[in-house]
Amino acid sequence: LPKGRIETLADGVFAIAMTLLVLDLRVPQALATGQVLPLLRQLAPNFLTYALSFANLGVYWVGHHVQFDSIRRADTRLLWINIVFLLLIGLIPFSTALLGAAPLDPMAVQVYGANLLLAGLALLWSWRYATEGRRLVDPDLGAERVRLGTVRSAVGGGVSVLAMALAFLDTRISIAIFSLVPLYFIFPAAFHRLRR
Amino acid sequence: LPKGRIETLADGVFAIAMTLLVLDLRVPQALATGQVLPLLRQLAPNFLTYALSFANLGVYWVGHHVQFDSIRRADTRLLWINIVFLLLIGLIPFSTALLGAAPLDPMAVQVYGANLLLAGLALLWSWRYATEGRRLVDPDLGAERVRLGTVRSAVGGGVSVLAMALAFLDTRISIAIFSLVPLYFIFPAAFHRLRR
Amino acid sequence: LPKGRIETLADGVFAIAMTLLVLDLRVPQALATGQVLPLLRQLAPNFLTYALSFANLGVYWVGHHVQFDSIRRADTRLLWINIVFLLLIGLIPFSTALLGAAPLDPMAVQVYGANLLLAGLALLWSWRYATEGRRLVDPDLGAERVRLGTVRSAVGGGVSVLAMALAFLDTRISIAIFSLVPLYFIFPAAFHRLRR
Amino acid sequence: LPKGRIETLADGVFAIAMTLLVLDLRVPQALATGQVLPLLRQLAPNFLTYALSFANLGVYWVGHHVQFDSIRRADTRLLWINIVFLLLIGLIPFSTALLGAAPLDPMAVQVYGANLLLAGLALLWSWRYATEGRRLVDPDLGAERVRLGTVRSAVGGGVSVLAMALAFLDTRISIAIFSLVPLYFIFPAAFHRLRR
Repeated sequence: LPKGRIETLADGVFAIAMTLLVLDLRVPQALATGQVLPLLRQLAPNFLTYALSFANLGVYWVGHHVQFDSIRRADTRLLWINIVFLLLIGLIPFSTALLGAAPLDPMAVQVYGANLLLAGLALLWSWRYATEGRRLVDPDLGAERVRLGTVRSAVGGGVSVLAMALAFLDTRISIAIFSLVPLYFIFPAAFHRLRR
Repeated sequence: LPKGRIETLADGVFAIAMTLLVLDLRVPQALATGQVLPLLRQLAPNFLTYALSFANLGVYWVGHHVQFDSIRRADTRLLWINIVFLLLIGLIPFSTALLGAAPLDPMAVQVYGANLLLAGLALLWSWRYATEGRRLVDPDLGAERVRLGTVRSAVGGGVSVLAMALAFLDTRISIAIFSLVPLYFIFPAAFHRLRR
Repeated sequence: LPKGRIETLADGVFAIAMTLLVLDLRVPQALATGQVLPLLRQLAPNFLTYALSFANLGVYWVGHHVQFDSIRRADTRLLWINIVFLLLIGLIPFSTALLGAAPLDPMAVQVYGANLLLAGLALLWSWRYATEGRRLVDPDLGAERVRLGTVRSAVGGGVSVLAMALAFLDTRISIAIFSLVPLYFIFPAAFHRLRR
Repeated sequence: LPKGRIETLADGVFAIAMTLLVLDLRVPQALATGQVLPLLRQLAPNFLTYALSFANLGVYWVGHHVQFDSIRRADTRLLWINIVFLLLIGLIPFSTALLGAAPLDPMAVQVYGANLLLAGLALLWSWRYATEGRRLVDPDLGAERVRLGTVRSAVGGGVSVLAMALAFLDTRISIAIFSLVPLYFIFPAAFHRLRR
């Protein structure tokens, strides 16, 4: 089977999930002059939740994109693994909104982290299935590239587990970790400079 | 006519239908600490409905994907058969929500089963139209492949009819059947092991 | 410019517009046994509106598909003509819902007819612009094919004008005309048999 | 990395953002005869907001389309710059609705202008990154084409800054400027005639 349609379906689900939290940014039909700033202030947590959800979906979308760049063809089993992946992706706006509503509750961090972890595991499952015996990738795909793809998926999951564990100390540490991951991808140079 | 755009339109409609039930997972703007778990418990039936709808849409999406892999080109009639198919696909989130709201009511099972059955018949119609006299497929597509595609579509419909009939005995049997179909596709190995 | 992205954007807007009226089919979280049928009866007008909107969007989607099959490339002006077309397509669920809410009010028929007419004119505009001097089509595209595309777009508009005029007699005649157009495309054989 | 999937994701986000404000055009399930016109009059500001949002999203979609026509391939950094761009695109329906709700409040103009300005800067960022040292474009892409792309993105931003500054004089001047930009793209000939 060709792989093009999983990509289109995935792009569609990602586009919808990314814009889902915009629906919470509701504007009344008429606003008295001077009421714009109070409305923005009231919606401030929703903006943050929208941006965090968008950014984390970005991490998984880029991961999916990079993975499917190496995949050559599909079979029905790979389609199904990706449907499970997309089901978990569709839940990210919900679990991000939950984190935004109860940022100090360790339970909200657990749900959010579990969502990201499971999505990461599904992505890893897809990669393992496709590369096992070079099933759906180029037969001469280097072992190094396969290992790198595995590590990349595992790192995301590892970060989630770490953040979930630290939530029992202070949920703000967990939220900082979750927020840094996308920032690292958007501004890698700033992080490298910081490290030096 | 090229077939690419039916596929894009179908992927778009499927992506929307798959994520439609996420809209029911509403989170209040602020949650007191300790209120996360009660909210999750309250939304539990919605999660199940979301997963069931996603999974059954997955069955039809994979079926559509496999079918169009054999189809080479389109004509306006095939486009229209597929528009009817997509109209029925767009109703699956509704009929799944109905089943989630009244799981013990045989009427809800009938509506849900009829929705799946009609979608299966539309998919079968599309296949019959495309393969009749090898109209829109490769002229040398084997008769075995054509028959297999017909059987695959018919099996889905047969399962629906069976589940609809058993609903008069106990609707929980029907729901179990509907849930097993996608699980069979996701974990085929487990089922094969069970059979042995 | 390549034409692929107008097609993807159009397919996305069509997929959203087609499924928009599904959002009105709301199910309560729990339904007492025996309440399924009353709910379906209450939602009956919404089902009809959904199907009518889906079918009419289908007419324009097929028209757009057939038109772009002949178009070879795009320029920014063609993109803009199509953005105007898609703006009107996005309004079809609204004007169909309006017609469903006030089927006996000639005003609702005028709004609905005007929406379809304007969308048809935008599609005609796109075709005229692309074919004028063979600007964006194959230089050897036959004059007959160009004329046929013009007639096809004009016919849709003509039907709308006719239905709008007859609304002052009886709006039910107009609604019958609007409903027959998609039915003609789905079951052409039945109509041809009827004519004989 | 291939560039096709950024385009599909972008087209999906644009299609959703363009149709988002249609959700505000709500129709009651039944309307008494003669109530159609009052409803249309009541929704008039929503129609304007929908059209303005659609048109401005059109400006950025065409800009993205033209830009990616010159881009040959992608890397993860370009993907991320575009995710930031799409995050800002997803906010345009919100800031347009805000402008529609408080058209005389300079604050609403600032928010709207800032949204357009930031989206323009993200598009410029994407172009600069791709063309710097001909990183992701054809090595022989002319310096004139690169400069033209830069100017085009900068002009949009400049118009936003101008409109934001004039809002302190009279917000209606700003709104006129914002509305003329898409009109200029749709009917360029009329503007050129006016200039002469």
